[in-house]
Amino acid sequence: MKKKLTKATKNARVGVLGSGSFATAIVKMLLENCKTVQWCVRNEFVKGAIEQRGHNPTYLTTVAFNLKKLNITTDINELVSNCDVIILAVPSIYLAESMEKLTCDLEGKLFCSAIKGIVPKHNDIVAHYLRDNFKIGFKNQAVIAGPCHAEEVAMERLSYLTVAVAEDEDAKVLQEILSSCYIKVNTSRDILGNEYSAILKNIYAIGAGIASGLGYGDNFIAVYVSNAIREMEAFLQAIYPEPRDVNDSAYLGDLIVTAYSLFSRNRNLGNLIGKGYTVKSAIQSMSMVAEGYYATNGIYSICKDKKLKLPIVNTIYEILYEGKNAEKQFAKLTEKLT
Amino acid sequence: MKKKLTKATKNARVGVLGSGSFATAIVKMLLENCKTVQWCVRNEFVKGAIEQRGHNPTYLTTVAFNLKKLNITTDINELVSNCDVIILAVPSIYLAESMEKLTCDLEGKLFCSAIKGIVPKHNDIVAHYLRDNFKIGFKNQAVIAGPCHAEEVAMERLSYLTVAVAEDEDAKVLQEILSSCYIKVNTSRDILGNEYSAILKNIYAIGAGIASGLGYGDNFIAVYVSNAIREMEAFLQAIYPEPRDVNDSAYLGDLIVTAYSLFSRNRNLGNLIGKGYTVKSAIQSMSMVAEGYYATNGIYSICKDKKLKLPIVNTIYEILYEGKNAEKQFAKLTEKLT
Repeated sequence: MKKKLTKATKNARVGVLGSGSFATAIVKMLLENCKTVQWCVRNEFVKGAIEQRGHNPTYLTTVAFNLKKLNITTDINELVSNCDVIILAVPSIYLAESMEKLTCDLEGKLFCSAIKGIVPKHNDIVAHYLRDNFKIGFKNQAVIAGPCHAEEVAMERLSYLTVAVAEDEDAKVLQEILSSCYIKVNTSRDILGNEYSAILKNIYAIGAGIASGLGYGDNFIAVYVSNAIREMEAFLQAIYPEPRDVNDSAYLGDLIVTAYSLFSRNRNLGNLIGKGYTVKSAIQSMSMVAEGYYATNGIYSICKDKKLKLPIVNTIYEILYEGKNAEKQFAKLTEKLT
Repeated sequence: MKKKLTKATKNARVGVLGSGSFATAIVKMLLENCKTVQWCVRNEFVKGAIEQRGHNPTYLTTVAFNLKKLNITTDINELVSNCDVIILAVPSIYLAESMEKLTCDLEGKLFCSAIKGIVPKHNDIVAHYLRDNFKIGFKNQAVIAGPCHAEEVAMERLSYLTVAVAEDEDAKVLQEILSSCYIKVNTSRDILGNEYSAILKNIYAIGAGIASGLGYGDNFIAVYVSNAIREMEAFLQAIYPEPRDVNDSAYLGDLIVTAYSLFSRNRNLGNLIGKGYTVKSAIQSMSMVAEGYYATNGIYSICKDKKLKLPIVNTIYEILYEGKNAEKQFAKLTEKLT
């Protein structure tokens, strides 16, 4: 049974899991509308630092919080039992570690994933992970999609989110608690499509970075991105056919911002590899997790299972996981693009 | 009657009208394949300068030409009578002035437009202008589309062109004379769709520049571009319905490169306006013509005639031609985007 979410936005019982940059941005968005926000952060150091300084010590440090409106914890059970809506915004590699501690009742709660990655231990997407391991059905799930780099939320630059959720009433609640003068919220019912596309775009952004690092120019990157959105559409239609327009902001917009923005850590990872760093040293040199790395492995497995041919994903996989030479693989890829 | 074009690439009788940056880039491409290239330039000064220095004196000055392979003229009748394929690559505002001098026989020749703009005097696209004023039917026309900034051709950075032409044999000839290790050529039959989209993308690029100049960030520009491609698709389907994928490189790729590349003069024009320049002073401060300025007027007229609503084109028109405030018009536009 699904509980009715409270429609009074101010009093919504809403919480955020995660203390990275996107989690911090979401807390900022919610505080524009909600009287209080529950926030489950990584550890006591982060909790103490936020409570003492009024801002996240590591990410989006310019965002000052009104501490009276925040209830910070490190206990996921406290978070979940106090909330009707739980927004998951940890890097996908840390999700299982957090969720495994859950012992409280999950009945009727809405879990919104703002995670754009594969759960590495399970090599599956978050929606499947939640359904298979916690019996959270798709009616109790939502996906929050971009294009929305957290750094621009911190600057209050106008950004558009898309919330994908099964029921109209839930869509309305999510729209209300996230909207503000700098955030506009579209709604969608394509939960899995939005999740897959958010994952794929990180892989394509790594590729855009590699191309750029190798010295390919603007003309080529534009061709590459136009091929990437077509590859994404083919993948989505094969895996989860739905009437959707992949040129909507959540799909194409998110792909473009991730492939082009200098805020994109996936693009930056690719750029280092294109410039000649080994994959290992490129990963080590980055302070934040590039989701696309794990996503490449996960999506590649799905393609193998389903016998799908995705030339770009395949190229990135060969470079990241099979140690193949980026320059040579991209030269081959250029023959397949149109 | 249409003449058979020569299939021996080396001996193709091919010429270029125009001495701007894209014309210069096309001459470079052709010289990779053809024994000689006819080149009709603007005036005796340009002709003399190229013949003396071996490069265009003003545009892509780093591109050195083998003068033995070039036949340079300032007489369009000499160009056209010596060629089976004539590539038109002048800014659209100078096209009528050049074409009006034509007195020679045009029968059976293939006119390829690499112009991405509206012929201002006629307020119409090049394909219609050639058909209506010179009886050049669509079977004797082709369109050369990008994404292809000339500056990157000069650097021999891998770029993809699309040639749109009615007959397969002509497509093959164009593909052969333009292809090289840094140019790949797709083919299409969507002559008018490619022409309209190349025109529209310049308008959208002005808008991307305005948004950027006004201080909108990457998140917003990505949403804007994803709306622009949907608006373009709606326009193309209304004006000239065809089975086409607007995510092909010639449509989406060209839109992206023009909206994002710093080589894009349309984007730069918009950027100046967004930063507060008046339209007049922004235009005056640029050394090269921004096609999107005239295109906005032309496409706006078509929309008015056909009762089409294109919110982005409309916004740009109000800013460029009705003196409306860019900041206010963009604030209104953000309410219409999704």
